[in-house]
Amino acid sequence: MNYKHIFSQAIERLHGEGRYRVFIDILRNKGAYPNARCFHGHNGPKPITVWCSNDYLAMGQHPKVIAAMEEALHDVGAGSGGTRNIGGNTHYHVDLESELADLHGKEAALLFTSGYVSNEATLSTLAKLLPGCIIFSDELNHASMIAGIRNSGCEKQVFRHNDVEHLRELLAAADPEAPKLIAFESVYSMDGDVAPISALCDLADEFNALTYLDEVHAVGMYGPRGGGISDRDEVAGRLTIIEGTLGKAFGVMGGYIAADQMIVDVIRSYAPGFIFTTSLSPVLVAGALASVRHLKSSSEERQGQQAAAARLKAMMGEAGLPVMPSTTHIVPLMVGDPVKAKRISDILLAEYGVYVQPINYPTVPRGTERLRFTPGPAHDESMMRELVSALVEIWDRLELREAKAA
Amino acid sequence: MNYKHIFSQAIERLHGEGRYRVFIDILRNKGAYPNARCFHGHNGPKPITVWCSNDYLAMGQHPKVIAAMEEALHDVGAGSGGTRNIGGNTHYHVDLESELADLHGKEAALLFTSGYVSNEATLSTLAKLLPGCIIFSDELNHASMIAGIRNSGCEKQVFRHNDVEHLRELLAAADPEAPKLIAFESVYSMDGDVAPISALCDLADEFNALTYLDEVHAVGMYGPRGGGISDRDEVAGRLTIIEGTLGKAFGVMGGYIAADQMIVDVIRSYAPGFIFTTSLSPVLVAGALASVRHLKSSSEERQGQQAAAARLKAMMGEAGLPVMPSTTHIVPLMVGDPVKAKRISDILLAEYGVYVQPINYPTVPRGTERLRFTPGPAHDESMMRELVSALVEIWDRLELREAKAA
Ligand SMILES: Cc1ncc(COP(=O)(O)O)c(C=O)c1O
Ligand SMILES: Cc1ncc(COP(=O)(O)O)c(C=O)c1O
Repeated sequence: MNYKHIFSQAIERLHGEGRYRVFIDILRNKGAYPNARCFHGHNGPKPITVWCSNDYLAMGQHPKVIAAMEEALHDVGAGSGGTRNIGGNTHYHVDLESELADLHGKEAALLFTSGYVSNEATLSTLAKLLPGCIIFSDELNHASMIAGIRNSGCEKQVFRHNDVEHLRELLAAADPEAPKLIAFESVYSMDGDVAPISALCDLADEFNALTYLDEVHAVGMYGPRGGGISDRDEVAGRLTIIEGTLGKAFGVMGGYIAADQMIVDVIRSYAPGFIFTTSLSPVLVAGALASVRHLKSSSEERQGQQAAAARLKAMMGEAGLPVMPSTTHIVPLMVGDPVKAKRISDILLAEYGVYVQPINYPTVPRGTERLRFTPGPAHDESMMRELVSALVEIWDRLELREAKAA
Repeated sequence: MNYKHIFSQAIERLHGEGRYRVFIDILRNKGAYPNARCFHGHNGPKPITVWCSNDYLAMGQHPKVIAAMEEALHDVGAGSGGTRNIGGNTHYHVDLESELADLHGKEAALLFTSGYVSNEATLSTLAKLLPGCIIFSDELNHASMIAGIRNSGCEKQVFRHNDVEHLRELLAAADPEAPKLIAFESVYSMDGDVAPISALCDLADEFNALTYLDEVHAVGMYGPRGGGISDRDEVAGRLTIIEGTLGKAFGVMGGYIAADQMIVDVIRSYAPGFIFTTSLSPVLVAGALASVRHLKSSSEERQGQQAAAARLKAMMGEAGLPVMPSTTHIVPLMVGDPVKAKRISDILLAEYGVYVQPINYPTVPRGTERLRFTPGPAHDESMMRELVSALVEIWDRLELREAKAA
């Protein structure tokens, strides 16, 4: 048994496929976002513009968020010092959970250390508590949902992406007495399309299924109070569980679910991923609380983001760049090859000071490698012009138009 | 299918067994730890003394940690805004990883959002990469290691707690060609005993097995630089992977592994729990960096903790309280019944302003329910005297001595 050999082969496979990942080492400049410093392959930091952050609304820089975190830091200190059950349940946690329950119009909410953990812990535990449960899962669901479903050990049926008719077929063919759960996302973050939530809820009603909606890429950004697509479409009340993150539009870190009291109590009481871990630092919780509260009443950030996304899509389209048909704030540009996507990203960083990460397998299917831009309220017209002209130059240099036409 | 009924039964089971958990709602007082405020069942906060925090050395309150977090907050903002691969790799992360690698004398280290996630992600991924792998797991391993082993889908063999001979039997009986991994902890946090690391490494050498050591309850607290029991016993170099947390003695939040470059690279490249999640907030990383650096050179906190633990154990023993035979900083008091353990804890909080959480199943085996005290450098002699006399009074009031003698 030669362990080294097996491990080195695993790494070689990644190099061979052109998808070995090199992390770009950056520091953002507070107050000057999307400007940042890059430490990668240079002597000393170099100024860059960040185009791929999921701090979508720059709330990680918002004065209210910073002030709330600073206050908590000085009031109670750095970490919580324990699991939620053993010393790690602070007043901040209690407050944020009721704020999030209210955001989604649910009875209760539960915090986790991340959105990943909230998906994994909730889905695996829920399905374990329902013997014989079948989970119906959208084929493009996020890795954290897939992990939760897999770890539940229950039967999984995958429906084609956003395909209501396919889901109906699967539900109709399943044992009517079996517990059922339909798991899907609202905004799919690599394509920028949106689920038909209402139609999926109709099916859930018809077949007596529970529903689980991941709103990770929508909370803070859609709906009059930032409750996500289910808030915008006024369907939050129809969903059994809504899941979200505090690490993207809310700008901090952590995850949560919102649901009725009993379901939250069951997950709180049975999910190992919730129980056996140090709770979120009160400093983060205080920051998230300020962020959620701010975005409940302010729509300025949301409007700025939507305007920036529309503008960038239009400019890319006019320039003949292969922008994908997103209906949201996400602006993906198809490349279709991992090596080329990495090459474009490398040139952008080295020659133009533009930071956008290539997205490759397993984050997206092979052959659909892309660049994914996330313009926010702070990306202005001149930054966009510079970006688009850089892309046009690189697309020509690498003869990508020809490649596509061929 | 009546979902409500199933969920309410699941909750009823917990009430029936006396182990339904009620979280105590507290806020610590920075600079005055272990003093805190309790919001639980009172009008307005009530002052309490915390006896069950895993911020073992009060580093969550240390001026250097607070200052580092404040600086990061003002330099770069609240959250990282992305996964490690997509915009969430900051210079703080890179620095902390090299600091942690150095702490354990390893080539590299990798950060996770928690100790739980580091165990789950590393163990499940490692075993998946080694087809036919058998994991040999101590029977008292933490829930997060159990989750990782379970989710790897590989064969698991459980050896009796700290029983080297039993492990030898299992290893000798296994296929000599199969990849093998021995997974264990250094300090077992609910009993306070310590693994025979060196003897376990001898077995690993003999049977060509990898070793995985969870040092979550030892990092910061043992060894001349706080590298854990493997640092104290000078055996770090013999272990394949050392895992730790930033959320206990280091006082912040997060988890990590340290190992050779190739293993870290494999986990970094293949573990979903590492890849698909927003990276640790740079604010936390900056705090952890300050904490790790401080405890590398200062032994004052470690000595204070050891002295406090020895003193409390001695006082409890002299008072005839059933203190368990811990050889570490953990001071567990056996009760053996979930309802009584909760009752003692309730009286301590309501009448004495002492906060110590009852520990029940599934954290410890049924019938071994206990109170678990974690004295630190800031718990002084007079706090200990008050605690012990409260315990003696309650033990008499509830006739626990008689119950034990019967
Ligand atoms: C759809 C989706 N769900 C969940 C997550 C995980 O959330 P978090 O980053 O808070 O762990 C992500 C991305 O990270 C995601 O894209
Ligand atoms: C032995 C052990 N390993 C891992 C963990 C998880 O670490 P964290 O709290 O950082 O998630 C814990 C406790 O929480 C633990 O006791």
